[in-house]
Amino acid sequence: MKFTVSRSIGTQQRLSRKIITQDKSIALVPTMGFLHQGHLSLIRRGLRKADIVVTSIFVNPAQFAPHEDFNQYPRDHKSDLQKIRSAGGQIVFMPKASDIYPVDYETYVTVENMTGALEGKSRPTHFRGVTTIVAQLFNIIRPDFALFGMKDYQQAMVLKKMCSDLNWPIKMIIVPTLREKDGLAMSSRNKYLSPLLRAEAPALYQSLLAARQSARRGETGAAAIRRQMKRLIDKAAPSGKIDYIAFTEMESLIPVRRVDKNTVVSLAVKLGPIRLIDNLKIA
Amino acid sequence: MKFTVSRSIGTQQRLSRKIITQDKSIALVPTMGFLHQGHLSLIRRGLRKADIVVTSIFVNPAQFAPHEDFNQYPRDHKSDLQKIRSAGGQIVFMPKASDIYPVDYETYVTVENMTGALEGKSRPTHFRGVTTIVAQLFNIIRPDFALFGMKDYQQAMVLKKMCSDLNWPIKMIIVPTLREKDGLAMSSRNKYLSPLLRAEAPALYQSLLAARQSARRGETGAAAIRRQMKRLIDKAAPSGKIDYIAFTEMESLIPVRRVDKNTVVSLAVKLGPIRLIDNLKIA
Repeated sequence: MKFTVSRSIGTQQRLSRKIITQDKSIALVPTMGFLHQGHLSLIRRGLRKADIVVTSIFVNPAQFAPHEDFNQYPRDHKSDLQKIRSAGGQIVFMPKASDIYPVDYETYVTVENMTGALEGKSRPTHFRGVTTIVAQLFNIIRPDFALFGMKDYQQAMVLKKMCSDLNWPIKMIIVPTLREKDGLAMSSRNKYLSPLLRAEAPALYQSLLAARQSARRGETGAAAIRRQMKRLIDKAAPSGKIDYIAFTEMESLIPVRRVDKNTVVSLAVKLGPIRLIDNLKIA
Repeated sequence: MKFTVSRSIGTQQRLSRKIITQDKSIALVPTMGFLHQGHLSLIRRGLRKADIVVTSIFVNPAQFAPHEDFNQYPRDHKSDLQKIRSAGGQIVFMPKASDIYPVDYETYVTVENMTGALEGKSRPTHFRGVTTIVAQLFNIIRPDFALFGMKDYQQAMVLKKMCSDLNWPIKMIIVPTLREKDGLAMSSRNKYLSPLLRAEAPALYQSLLAARQSARRGETGAAAIRRQMKRLIDKAAPSGKIDYIAFTEMESLIPVRRVDKNTVVSLAVKLGPIRLIDNLKIA
């Protein structure tokens, strides 16, 4: 299929209908653009599952609070299109904000219980924005598969729950986090780290690895592991302010006191003005 | 196509996928069962638009408040299936409540502004239940058309807004209300009216007709027309308790003081234990 950029909802709906009636499958990779290798790994994984990969690029205003970095969020559409094309993605959907959220817009999708803790605590309206835009993308693009990065762990689980509760016939695929050589999880926001903060940033992943090592050595108490992680971060990233270090059941996000094979450790740390998140399955 | 009853979400999803990949169109008629001629007119209209009509039968617990008539809502599946078959409907989707709302269910769709007034005022959680079940039906059945009766005017407009805001590729068709010979709007709940209340029930439609006549004669004040309707109902239905008489802009449900061609008059009246609703375009 010829590389295609669709910029209107109607165009994308017609494209998707054509693909579906040809009995071809679609994989969706939703992004906010400024693509890195993590995104491209989602596209490549999508191409192994489906005939056509649709990558959406949309910096979604509904998932940013007024004080957050919507306007500063990095954008580079020209480079994004080249990267998607090189990775083999066939369609890029780039809608206008005024088409996704017209002035009289008033419909929202909410996943109630899973969105209160972790990221949702610091960002109370964030997930409603995420679930609403992804619901729109599901309806416009009508994929058979949707791919999300494990880097945004809570987001991935919330969207999986939304998809299952509302019964879209879509298989959700959660793809492992890609990391820089020093372990820092790839993220579009990393480019805003000053050299000093960039040097401290690998402390997040180091603390996760330390947590896993403790668990593997037999430590099961979440509180003890958390203390150890905190010490490590305080030492290796003195600029860091820990927002949370959480131990939760993989799919349900229910907090646990005793860690086991199904436990995910996740954390958010503010390094100067940049808030970073990361997570690791502990077993 | 052979008349088919699908009782599980997976079965219906496979059926729909098969129809879609054959490039055939689907019309959805969502019902709570206990079908009357109004429902059958939706099915017949659906058959004129699409290759396959899927009628869903599901008494949706999420749209009833705890004190409302969920358990008393009339059910007659055997007769429903016969009626759908006679009308030409090919597929009936009858899911179990525990499949639609499993114990850990937590995802809801809300249309915010349009749901506060009229029915939403008396039934604050009602529309969240309606929009959530219809979102599920849209995703499971994947129709090209969805048909709703104008009798539930606010519901029809809220669902139209939901469909448009969340960008399902579905055309919403609102079908005129069918009425008994004396003008009473057909409704599954009518069967619970005692003979006395049944005799008073046509007062609702008579008051709507009177409102239209006044408007056509040049009266444009909503307050004056409301007073006239109230007098008529008080006289012709002495058991009636008026919940609301509202004048609103057709699509937006915004209240108007001056009526024009785009105004809908809607009302809810409690006749003994039975709450009846009706509406009419005024021009």
